[in-house]
Amino acid sequence: MCVKERDWVILQTSDGKNYLVEVKSQTFHTHKDSLFLGELIGRKFGEVVYGKRGEKFFLLRPTLFDFLMKVERATQIIYPKDIGYILLKLGIGPDKIVLECGAGSGALTLAMAYMVGEKGKVISYEKEAKFLEIVKKNLQKVKLSERVILKNVEVKEKFDEKEVDAVFLDLKEPWFLIEASWQALKSGSTLGIIVPTTNQISQCLKILEKYPFVDIEVVEILVRKYKTNPERIRPEDRMVAHTGFLIFAKKVNEK
Amino acid sequence: MCVKERDWVILQTSDGKNYLVEVKSQTFHTHKDSLFLGELIGRKFGEVVYGKRGEKFFLLRPTLFDFLMKVERATQIIYPKDIGYILLKLGIGPDKIVLECGAGSGALTLAMAYMVGEKGKVISYEKEAKFLEIVKKNLQKVKLSERVILKNVEVKEKFDEKEVDAVFLDLKEPWFLIEASWQALKSGSTLGIIVPTTNQISQCLKILEKYPFVDIEVVEILVRKYKTNPERIRPEDRMVAHTGFLIFAKKVNEK
Amino acid sequence: MCVKERDWVILQTSDGKNYLVEVKSQTFHTHKDSLFLGELIGRKFGEVVYGKRGEKFFLLRPTLFDFLMKVERATQIIYPKDIGYILLKLGIGPDKIVLECGAGSGALTLAMAYMVGEKGKVISYEKEAKFLEIVKKNLQKVKLSERVILKNVEVKEKFDEKEVDAVFLDLKEPWFLIEASWQALKSGSTLGIIVPTTNQISQCLKILEKYPFVDIEVVEILVRKYKTNPERIRPEDRMVAHTGFLIFAKKVNEK
Amino acid sequence: MCVKERDWVILQTSDGKNYLVEVKSQTFHTHKDSLFLGELIGRKFGEVVYGKRGEKFFLLRPTLFDFLMKVERATQIIYPKDIGYILLKLGIGPDKIVLECGAGSGALTLAMAYMVGEKGKVISYEKEAKFLEIVKKNLQKVKLSERVILKNVEVKEKFDEKEVDAVFLDLKEPWFLIEASWQALKSGSTLGIIVPTTNQISQCLKILEKYPFVDIEVVEILVRKYKTNPERIRPEDRMVAHTGFLIFAKKVNEK
Repeated sequence: MCVKERDWVILQTSDGKNYLVEVKSQTFHTHKDSLFLGELIGRKFGEVVYGKRGEKFFLLRPTLFDFLMKVERATQIIYPKDIGYILLKLGIGPDKIVLECGAGSGALTLAMAYMVGEKGKVISYEKEAKFLEIVKKNLQKVKLSERVILKNVEVKEKFDEKEVDAVFLDLKEPWFLIEASWQALKSGSTLGIIVPTTNQISQCLKILEKYPFVDIEVVEILVRKYKTNPERIRPEDRMVAHTGFLIFAKKVNEK
Repeated sequence: MCVKERDWVILQTSDGKNYLVEVKSQTFHTHKDSLFLGELIGRKFGEVVYGKRGEKFFLLRPTLFDFLMKVERATQIIYPKDIGYILLKLGIGPDKIVLECGAGSGALTLAMAYMVGEKGKVISYEKEAKFLEIVKKNLQKVKLSERVILKNVEVKEKFDEKEVDAVFLDLKEPWFLIEASWQALKSGSTLGIIVPTTNQISQCLKILEKYPFVDIEVVEILVRKYKTNPERIRPEDRMVAHTGFLIFAKKVNEK
Repeated sequence: MCVKERDWVILQTSDGKNYLVEVKSQTFHTHKDSLFLGELIGRKFGEVVYGKRGEKFFLLRPTLFDFLMKVERATQIIYPKDIGYILLKLGIGPDKIVLECGAGSGALTLAMAYMVGEKGKVISYEKEAKFLEIVKKNLQKVKLSERVILKNVEVKEKFDEKEVDAVFLDLKEPWFLIEASWQALKSGSTLGIIVPTTNQISQCLKILEKYPFVDIEVVEILVRKYKTNPERIRPEDRMVAHTGFLIFAKKVNEK
Repeated sequence: MCVKERDWVILQTSDGKNYLVEVKSQTFHTHKDSLFLGELIGRKFGEVVYGKRGEKFFLLRPTLFDFLMKVERATQIIYPKDIGYILLKLGIGPDKIVLECGAGSGALTLAMAYMVGEKGKVISYEKEAKFLEIVKKNLQKVKLSERVILKNVEVKEKFDEKEVDAVFLDLKEPWFLIEASWQALKSGSTLGIIVPTTNQISQCLKILEKYPFVDIEVVEILVRKYKTNPERIRPEDRMVAHTGFLIFAKKVNEK
């Protein structure tokens, strides 16, 4: 399969840096070299291409992971380490209807849109119009806009939807939408929440206890990277120590 | 949507234990009570059902996560914390063709089959016939058998497939199949490996260096669970400290 | 140096189990064998001794670490991983005068008594008489009783001491003694606190802010153990994921 | 107790930065202000002092921890999180005789010298003369030089000492000195080793197995720091993910 105009590709330099670029009539610059992106049309993924000054670039197919790490950011994004776990806990796969509020920069939106497939749907609430513009751009990049309904609304009391397969909340005060989430969810299905502080965990748990939710879980996911010299295996010196805490609960009819 | 015969459901007891059971003409026993499972037909997810002695059970819809945690095990399984990250790194979603070797008990097989959707395909190699029987049973449970091609073969030199979207290796000596993986992969796509020891990381990296692979990453994923009393937020006393190290690399044509 | 009567020694079995025992006219039993402890008198550390049925025991010199792990416990103890860090942060070494409240089972008491040497002193408050008895026994075992002043008092407003080199609080509601700690501390010196929950961290920080304390630090210490097979280096499957959070602050005269 | 000439003190600025400075006839500069250090003579720890432009400085008593974090560095140092654990495992306290090789920048040297007290002794081997100069300076700063015997020697086969209470190795290839360590140690006492990579753990374990050592332990210590806003308790965004692995073993006479 050949690279086509308007495809997004990864260019990886020989020192291991990844650039996510769109194939169009434009020149791409690193500090060492430059490359006319139009030349990539018709090339194959996995090939080596050369810049004007002879720099080597590997032409790679971006995976979902690459798109997530390279989304345009207006806010703190949800990281792949958390997204992977969220998708499994919420059971997000082909044909599902999922609701999230708020969208932020849309990293999770994008992952969910990818996973629900052509017949699934993501409903994404975001009160800030400027964030929503960024979500739109990020979705266009991966050609998944049609699977997502963006709503520029600040939800106060309830969502428009009912019987959705999963709800995810990424807000400063998610506890105000726990009742609304219960209303929107299909019975027996899962609510997910992300919060950065333990004070917010506390507040969420207090409200969750008041509604018919069971199977409550609070976790954090840590990724530890290792250096790749086979003679000197060791963790990297520094790591991301915290992004957020994840809370999950399943809706029941009564408790 | 009502529960039907042969559905798999979660029964959660009031002390928080989860049981994954099949709805059929049979009685289910806990140490406290029992429940005739045929009674569940026609009930709705989210409902409370009562055992013969009055014990409360929540009737929950199993998510992919629940199925993964409850697969029948013949081997050490790959855990959801790792599976979530693997799916994203390998870009496994609707319509993909993915290859794994070996299948083990099939936890990852099941997750991949779920995510590739109706038009995707999982090719799963496993040399031990007895493990393959268990994979089969686990796939039947989630009604995903049609998406998976099981091959009871010990691969020595190469896979039958070409141009697959991703390859995952879960073997004692995965380095012997790194060349075969390169052959099977679509150019620019990703190979994933899981190994429990750092000696094995070393060995894999040494062989990966010999073939045209770039973007090599070695990581481990840790999940830390928290207690859910809002007045006493704290991590659980003990945690799973290790399952395996994950290695990822992207195929290029030359290096 | 030979083993003498009433010494405490470690007996390690060939399967790696450690027993801390006192050398006296008594027989020690494991499930496999037995050993008359009086026989150990005159033996040297590092020697192998044999039980009646021929079981091998290594005769080892207990280090501070061994005594800490083997204290008689009436309460949750403070673990060596935390004690090591506490000692350094509080600057506890020879000749220091340190105050702690409460003593619990005395693991930290013992470590501090060891480190302050013959001319130092530990003042240890504990309101529960029954815990104090256990602290006494644990101190006698290591022959450090003379360095510790035990006070069976529930402190409400202030400590009897002034100008101590360090204060450590291990209580349910340590915030009630933050003012008392400030009063007792030498200016410029350090207060340490251990609490199991994040709600307690919050409460402590709120009160610390009201008094002239600077250089406030909140940390947790994690120990990850590895298996010791050189061909299969990997972390243990499970680990202690949480004991407590440590809070440190330095007293100043004004803020 | 008043600050005297040539004392080392901590000056902490209102934005939380710590400076370890020597009190002498000299001016200390931050990017915001300056302070004539001679003025500190006669002041008390815990006091606030003001710079020429009115900046506030807290005058704090440096603890062992502060000295460790501020040692002059020529090499990667051993961190307090590791030092605390090492001291306990090796049983380093008043009156002990301990041997280390190599000294590096002397952070551990300093901590051990502090803990052994006036009657204890640290023997410290370091083959690089330039590192040894730095160790000397770091020891003078804390006035502990008399407790340390520095040896500018590259040990090949054995140490000069016998019957020491503990040995610690911090070298690229510590396995070459495992036999020498066994020779130098008192029977029943503990050897400690630090190495950054798992390949080195492997090598050490292989050699340890060949000599009469028991109670072998491999661990790593992690410190996770938390933000100190009581309304927003959460771990810091990033952390030190790796310094080194610690290996411990006890000498016996035969195995």
